[in-house]
Amino acid sequence: MYRSHNCGELNASHIHTEVTLAGWVQKSRDKGFMIWVDLRDRYGITQLIFDESRTDKAVFELAKTLGREFVIQVKGTVIERESKNPNISTGDIEILVSELKVLNSAITPPFTIEDETDGGEDIRMKYRYLDIRRNPVKNSLLFRHKVAMEVRNFLSNKGFCEVETPYLIKSTPEGARDFVVPSRMNPGQFYALPQSPQTFKQLLMVGGMDKYFQIVKCFRDEDLRADRQPEFTQIDCEMAFVEQEDILNTFEGLTRHLLKEIKGIEVDKFPRITYEYAMKTYGNDKPDIRFGMEFGELNEFAQHKDFAVFNSSELVVGIAVPGGAAYTRKEIDGWIDWVKRPQVGASGMVYCKYEADGTLKSSVDKFYDQEDLKKWAEITKANPGDIIFVLSGPADKTRGQLSALRMELGNRLGLRKPDEFAPLWVVDFPLLEWDEESQRYHAMHHPFTSPKPEDIHLIGTEPGKIRANAYDMVLNGNEIGGGSIRIHDKELQARMFELLGFTQEEAENQFGFLMNAFQYGAPPHGGLAFGLDRLVAILGGQETIRDFIAFPKNNSGRDVMIDAPSVIDHKQLDELSIQLNVQ
Amino acid sequence: MYRSHNCGELNASHIHTEVTLAGWVQKSRDKGFMIWVDLRDRYGITQLIFDESRTDKAVFELAKTLGREFVIQVKGTVIERESKNPNISTGDIEILVSELKVLNSAITPPFTIEDETDGGEDIRMKYRYLDIRRNPVKNSLLFRHKVAMEVRNFLSNKGFCEVETPYLIKSTPEGARDFVVPSRMNPGQFYALPQSPQTFKQLLMVGGMDKYFQIVKCFRDEDLRADRQPEFTQIDCEMAFVEQEDILNTFEGLTRHLLKEIKGIEVDKFPRITYEYAMKTYGNDKPDIRFGMEFGELNEFAQHKDFAVFNSSELVVGIAVPGGAAYTRKEIDGWIDWVKRPQVGASGMVYCKYEADGTLKSSVDKFYDQEDLKKWAEITKANPGDIIFVLSGPADKTRGQLSALRMELGNRLGLRKPDEFAPLWVVDFPLLEWDEESQRYHAMHHPFTSPKPEDIHLIGTEPGKIRANAYDMVLNGNEIGGGSIRIHDKELQARMFELLGFTQEEAENQFGFLMNAFQYGAPPHGGLAFGLDRLVAILGGQETIRDFIAFPKNNSGRDVMIDAPSVIDHKQLDELSIQLNVQ
Repeated sequence: MYRSHNCGELNASHIHTEVTLAGWVQKSRDKGFMIWVDLRDRYGITQLIFDESRTDKAVFELAKTLGREFVIQVKGTVIERESKNPNISTGDIEILVSELKVLNSAITPPFTIEDETDGGEDIRMKYRYLDIRRNPVKNSLLFRHKVAMEVRNFLSNKGFCEVETPYLIKSTPEGARDFVVPSRMNPGQFYALPQSPQTFKQLLMVGGMDKYFQIVKCFRDEDLRADRQPEFTQIDCEMAFVEQEDILNTFEGLTRHLLKEIKGIEVDKFPRITYEYAMKTYGNDKPDIRFGMEFGELNEFAQHKDFAVFNSSELVVGIAVPGGAAYTRKEIDGWIDWVKRPQVGASGMVYCKYEADGTLKSSVDKFYDQEDLKKWAEITKANPGDIIFVLSGPADKTRGQLSALRMELGNRLGLRKPDEFAPLWVVDFPLLEWDEESQRYHAMHHPFTSPKPEDIHLIGTEPGKIRANAYDMVLNGNEIGGGSIRIHDKELQARMFELLGFTQEEAENQFGFLMNAFQYGAPPHGGLAFGLDRLVAILGGQETIRDFIAFPKNNSGRDVMIDAPSVIDHKQLDELSIQLNVQ
Repeated sequence: MYRSHNCGELNASHIHTEVTLAGWVQKSRDKGFMIWVDLRDRYGITQLIFDESRTDKAVFELAKTLGREFVIQVKGTVIERESKNPNISTGDIEILVSELKVLNSAITPPFTIEDETDGGEDIRMKYRYLDIRRNPVKNSLLFRHKVAMEVRNFLSNKGFCEVETPYLIKSTPEGARDFVVPSRMNPGQFYALPQSPQTFKQLLMVGGMDKYFQIVKCFRDEDLRADRQPEFTQIDCEMAFVEQEDILNTFEGLTRHLLKEIKGIEVDKFPRITYEYAMKTYGNDKPDIRFGMEFGELNEFAQHKDFAVFNSSELVVGIAVPGGAAYTRKEIDGWIDWVKRPQVGASGMVYCKYEADGTLKSSVDKFYDQEDLKKWAEITKANPGDIIFVLSGPADKTRGQLSALRMELGNRLGLRKPDEFAPLWVVDFPLLEWDEESQRYHAMHHPFTSPKPEDIHLIGTEPGKIRANAYDMVLNGNEIGGGSIRIHDKELQARMFELLGFTQEEAENQFGFLMNAFQYGAPPHGGLAFGLDRLVAILGGQETIRDFIAFPKNNSGRDVMIDAPSVIDHKQLDELSIQLNVQ
């Protein structure tokens, strides 16, 4: 062992102890007759002192040569520090060094290894092994480990069994694009990497495994949006002999446990709202409920006058912005410009100030009187001092626009506090969504999701109105988990594939094994999956997942550190019976 | 929830309780006026009783229709059983059923869902979801979960951090064949699936992560021998600022913990033997030391007479077989035939019976006298009643043959007891091995393994004699883990690549990122990896890993259940810029 203690554990109680430490030179201050070195390892920083009058000459001279990030081993005595540093755990002591060994030298790092670094995203990714030495990244990885351990122990104690499902599976055109793996032993054939272990976990239920979970890598070959990764990690769970209520309670319990153990926060029973309510109230199926600003639908009180813009709109809807009555004309124009940006797409915005004295002043005063505006205030729950922002147009689109505005307001008003956690369930998702492009229904969750029994009768007539036994867990404006009760009946599953536009042959080819399995006694079952990357980022109070992934890829799917993907030998291609088709 | 209790928990203390159970019909006995049904779930079997005189007529009639593997839900009262079954935990009670609901019917399964099934390997793999219902498979999966949890909690409590390393990495021609993944976003380029996270865990050490582990899938596109899988699971570990001794102690501690917690067995400090000793004493670098039969080298006492076969051999080596003096001539001939099989390849075998009266009778009595044979007995540690089997020929080959014989004898004599555990370390492996085919050195462990400092001077003269700081953990004749102290110096690593026949450009191309990293302050580090599949199989007292993998592949690398790999769309190939090259 190269050390007797680590760099984070020595304190006043160790004074006079002989210790051996090893780590990296964080920085060095050379005063001529005295050299101080901050020695860093995973656990902290300990100050070393080399004193011309007390330190062996050769050691002292060697200490002068130490550069940043040199790896060294020292022996010495713990002594009391003259000027104590209350900010670090080892701040009361320093080590008077008697022996020094350079274990490895270091050239100058391309960015500073400090909490606040001067390195940009690209350079930090290329030298990720240096970035990981920085506290923000290192602590994020340790935090992720802690969360994963809590998840595993919680579920294992509840009788869940972690089962490893295969990574080399079968490609299916449904859903996102697969990564595929050519099979050398089966020329012309390919494995796919799993987008999720969905069918396998359902087969485990058929196999009687009853309570399953797995923390597992999943893969999607999608064009990467910001903060998406081609490989990502799920906490994948499934249970048999349960109803939706049991699943919600079980995984609400898990999340409550995490919030308590990891963040020290006690959370009440999670609110449950329907998808329909979420869309009407927040314009969004993953609402951030840390703040209000709920939508007020104003059609009744806005379409009875001569204002053509509102009268011709499917929906007129507003929100009350706390304290917004104080906005200047310029600030209001700023918000109007904001909603008119192409990313939001509103054509304009009506506003109405609710002054402290109780009077209301709107941008459409020539159409609406105080009585009308009072109603607007009532319905949007505005208080004196607020401003009401009103959008109008096609219902779905307008809700989306107002939702974007609400979130931006929440951000700018500081209402989205990173240390506050407001989880909820959104339930009763639609089973299907109509896709204009392909002119057919797509599964909103996935093709294995069970319709609500009371809605099944709509299957032949109004399939778009069928609600599913599907649910999302939402935390602070992010979907952190989602799942459903599954179909466990062969006929219903076949009907579902038909509804989704599969021919019988396609359904058989791709999912025959699952429908076959359903014939041999499939129990009722359901489950859900959490996105671990996102979950730990949110629990860690961060917006981006990248620091919580040890070796992330960039937006072109490249690992710039190891320079992958890369070209491979022709010999390899030949063995795989494939050739390139690149111009 | 479909049940108030599971099928394994009810006992006499529950008599008179109203319960709801759900599960599978294991079997049904219809006596006309009385029907008994064994209801099975993951937790056990509970007997249901339907009684014409006490059960509602409709329920009774429905019970008559139940077939094997139907999924049912029942309500009823726990009553005392007349003829108790002491073999199962619920054997004192049965459930007098009042309500019965068929949750799903089942067609006849293709094999019986019993501990001893009539289904062959192929059919059980195709219907793996039914195979998992059987206790031997189900319990193996639960056992695997338990082992994995113990590993994680042990390591986590020791300060190890589990870090997920990427699955989409870079292909390197060194080592086994990679599975590759074409990149759509980078046409003509490929990711590789990791054969192990070796370079990433080393970069984590460079990054200061100090104590790392990961239970992780790894991939090798090899022609599959029996009991090998293209995807397999490792417990991958690495530590910084440690020497070999620290690593051995840490992971010996882990294994001792597993044996104690999982098997209830206390094991002493593991023996440590060198690779050289293992080869000389057992002909094998993964010896089963649950039994003796150590090799005795007989050159000195076998090459001084006129027996040309021995005199012309590089090595004459024997083992004493306990009780073998009682073998008949036919039995001995059987063993001689066994070693002459092509798989073993000996050209013949000399034997020498050590009779109970102390006399020695050999098949080469005309060359050797009692004095000579006494020496043989002494050196092979034979006792009266044993037989000595002696092989001769080129040293390495002959040791291999005698090792095969020793293992077979161990099996047939019942000396390899599945409930006995004899772990050990084999240390001081050679750094390199000479490959006749490619006429160059290969890394025995991998190219990142550190030579022993005291042997480095041989690098220019006798590289084949350099010993490595490499070690294997061996349990009951299986290598369950292996690792090494790594090189952490850029120059030494470059020298090593050169020794292995890499051009500078190849080394830079494939491992430049690692050698670069070594320039920025790489700490001394090392680690090891356990094969989890094998480890759980051995701990479970089994020879084959297949039952411990939920969805294994067959020897052609196929998943016969989902029928993967499979052909994919031309559209998919086009997107990936590849085409098939299949005749």
